[in-house]
Amino acid sequence: MKAIWLDHEVRLRTDLPEPSPAAGEALVRVRLAGVCSTDLALLDGYYPFSGVLGHEFVGEITAAEKAPERVGERVVGAINLSCGHCSECRACRPSHCLNRAVLGIKRHDGAFAEYLCLPLGNLHRVPETVPDSAAVFTEPLAAALQIPEQVHITPSARVLVVGAGRLGQLIARVLALTGAELDVVARHAHQRQRLEGIATRCLQESEVATGGYDLVVEASGAPGGFALARKALRPRGTLCLKSTYRGEVAVDLSSLVVDEIRVFGSRCGPFPAALRLLERQHVDPTPLVDARLPLAEGVHALRRAAEPGVLKALIDCH
Amino acid sequence: MKAIWLDHEVRLRTDLPEPSPAAGEALVRVRLAGVCSTDLALLDGYYPFSGVLGHEFVGEITAAEKAPERVGERVVGAINLSCGHCSECRACRPSHCLNRAVLGIKRHDGAFAEYLCLPLGNLHRVPETVPDSAAVFTEPLAAALQIPEQVHITPSARVLVVGAGRLGQLIARVLALTGAELDVVARHAHQRQRLEGIATRCLQESEVATGGYDLVVEASGAPGGFALARKALRPRGTLCLKSTYRGEVAVDLSSLVVDEIRVFGSRCGPFPAALRLLERQHVDPTPLVDARLPLAEGVHALRRAAEPGVLKALIDCH
Ligand SMILES: [Zn+2]
Ligand SMILES: [Zn+2]
Ligand SMILES: [Zn+2]
Ligand SMILES: [Zn+2]
Repeated sequence: MKAIWLDHEVRLRTDLPEPSPAAGEALVRVRLAGVCSTDLALLDGYYPFSGVLGHEFVGEITAAEKAPERVGERVVGAINLSCGHCSECRACRPSHCLNRAVLGIKRHDGAFAEYLCLPLGNLHRVPETVPDSAAVFTEPLAAALQIPEQVHITPSARVLVVGAGRLGQLIARVLALTGAELDVVARHAHQRQRLEGIATRCLQESEVATGGYDLVVEASGAPGGFALARKALRPRGTLCLKSTYRGEVAVDLSSLVVDEIRVFGSRCGPFPAALRLLERQHVDPTPLVDARLPLAEGVHALRRAAEPGVLKALIDCH
Repeated sequence: MKAIWLDHEVRLRTDLPEPSPAAGEALVRVRLAGVCSTDLALLDGYYPFSGVLGHEFVGEITAAEKAPERVGERVVGAINLSCGHCSECRACRPSHCLNRAVLGIKRHDGAFAEYLCLPLGNLHRVPETVPDSAAVFTEPLAAALQIPEQVHITPSARVLVVGAGRLGQLIARVLALTGAELDVVARHAHQRQRLEGIATRCLQESEVATGGYDLVVEASGAPGGFALARKALRPRGTLCLKSTYRGEVAVDLSSLVVDEIRVFGSRCGPFPAALRLLERQHVDPTPLVDARLPLAEGVHALRRAAEPGVLKALIDCH
């Protein structure tokens, strides 16, 4: 089968065998996949992964030995493959499994391919009314929903999102639903345009009010993002870290103590809730699509996604 | 001016003078007002109020000595008139002011009239894109938003709303935005119909799963509502009381201790957040309107609102 393969370089391969589902896994025919900033970080050597890239997808189950009744189901998939027996798995935190593999990221081939395998429990049925072009956003939308999963955001809160890229846009859409006042730091005009009717205000970095926010979400991944986010918080405010960084960032820990700032990291989130919001049409991610290319041009899709200002690039896998 | 007046009976009066704004108050020409279950409870003698009924409205400022620049502004109004100097006011909880008057409910004439008076600080500008027919719902929508203001509802929560009347419908619309699984106890077909695409499931009382929910909102105001809500909660679940009751309700307090249930009452909520959700079009209350009558037929509007199954009745005041 065809797939986008990463080892020392990224390339289209056409010589790969269809993957074989392990016990408890299903074979999924990938319909549509999305490029995430993590894919671009993997290309840059952020993590030593070798294999098929891609972890955002919608597809259909074509084989499932343990659940033949699910064959034909249209699904999206949670990306963490957990072991089921480590201390984190036993504590019902499978996304933090100590022995986890991760679809297209760590020891498990990904979604930029004609077929992929995932455990049945990772695969969530997509409601009929949700089109592929929206369903393909379920994984990053779930990641955005992990923020309200972790922290109480009141309707009266003043919230700032730093960064209006692919993930920042989805975070803004989720946080707007709380009713909170929502400002977004968005550098580019095309980012601001996609936030009309969603953000209360779009700001440049220089316009961010010092101490003006109850909650700030750092979603820029830029080295200066943390300092900007921290500066924007009121005393006893909350800082959510939603980006990863290359290397270390210099942080004024004393100021966190003095102002009693709470910082929390946030990663993967709840798929069922993401699908409910798509089904209820409370979030429409489709205006974020800037490019859509066939799998044979998947390497080009990755390149498009890396261009400044491009939000979501999709890959048609069949 | 014309107004709907309650003393020992409710009637249209046409002999009332226009109200005179006190210092710091504005005179508001009422455009559209909404009938609330509290109005019906007042008719039933729930509270010994005498004066002009009505507390849900949208109107425009026609006079404001201390803020002449606001004349002409289209506004909605928070209903609690606080004293500014009691312990609750000093603690920034003006809706709990110990000396409060309440628009159309307690010592202050209400909105079923051509004109009303409210303090300038109570009046919130309505965004241009929000029509009167939606803006008139701001007050009960804010009351619904008081629930996520008070308690953290995660996207993965299992939530039940008991009651699908005027307020239950708005509560369901607000809680659906969290992404949570949302069941609603709705007796009547027309209530269930207005919840399509919003609730995960509409249930009859007999269908409610014992111990199945993390959060239950009691919005039925019916004597059996509390027992049903309590039964539906998992151990350590949270019960939100959003209705008032006539007289006392027999409660098994020991079972609350054994199952470590948290109960909280919830009343008025944040107007700015309600207006943001209307502006972002995340909530559309207009399908709840079942009747719309001129002020001269306001008594009839109250009667319509009291009919079983009628959701919102509106009164055109000009
Ligand atoms: Zn990703
Ligand atoms: Zn594990
Ligand atoms: Zn009311
Ligand atoms: Zn007071």
